Amino acid sequence: MADILHRVGIRSQSLQDIYDALTTEAGLAGWWTSNTQGQGNQVGNIIAFRFGAGGFDMKVTALEEPAHVSWEVVDGPAEWVGTSISFDIRQENDYAILLFKHANWREPVEFMHHCSTKWAVFLLSLKSLIEEGEGKPDPRDIKIDNWN
Amino acid sequence: MADILHRVGIRSQSLQDIYDALTTEAGLAGWWTSNTQGQGNQVGNIIAFRFGAGGFDMKVTALEEPAHVSWEVVDGPAEWVGTSISFDIRQENDYAILLFKHANWREPVEFMHHCSTKWAVFLLSLKSLIEEGEGKPDPRDIKIDNWN
Repeated sequence: MADILHRVGIRSQSLQDIYDALTTEAGLAGWWTSNTQGQGNQVGNIIAFRFGAGGFDMKVTALEEPAHVSWEVVDGPAEWVGTSISFDIRQENDYAILLFKHANWREPVEFMHHCSTKWAVFLLSLKSLIEEGEGKPDPRDIKIDNWN
Repeated sequence: MADILHRVGIRSQSLQDIYDALTTEAGLAGWWTSNTQGQGNQVGNIIAFRFGAGGFDMKVTALEEPAHVSWEVVDGPAEWVGTSISFDIRQENDYAILLFKHANWREPVEFMHHCSTKWAVFLLSLKSLIEEGEGKPDPRDIKIDNWN
């Protein structure tokens, strides 16, 4: 099993703002993909994220407002199904520190390399959304390679 | 053991340009850190990378021009020493595809999360250097959190 890990620090005194960006349709559409359908504020909910090249359905598996969110991938590319994604947020002086984990990839395939870089780009989009009021969700996201 | 993986696609027909950016002092200074000392074009060479907050000494452990570069971390933060870093480059239509691996972290510590995100930022700096002629090496790098 292999995991993608990331850490970003967001200049914010409000963990709630970040939690909202991870649990509401408008928030998620503001940094990950504009085509987001569903609310992530109840355990058991399904959120549908769609991109030009396909998409993912996530089941909300745990919530601890405002410090923790986790999802299980219930539909999408074969490599993603059954993996899990978590966000842990805490305050550290001027920053809300976000630890991200996309866990339990069965193999460290080339697509995992791509997704690791792409998650960094989207987490920096989340940082921009909170700090500047505007993220870069798909389709306005930064393109990193020929897979987008 | 845990690994950081990334994939970027660089719009270039020249693998050599990318290999040079990974093996020459000027190239490395153009995307990772302006304070780079040493040439990476001979196995056994040591390259010293310095940042505001410290730095790393890398020993070149393998070279296959223009497709592969690997280093071992011989000095730096305790979490880095003994880990290894590799770059694999191949042509795929309009793109030079770069697969990156920072392997053999003993534990998935919080610093590893930070370094994973930061490597993405620096690899996109390498992409900019090749595609646009200018990267964003330290100290002009994109800051991701309170650790920089």
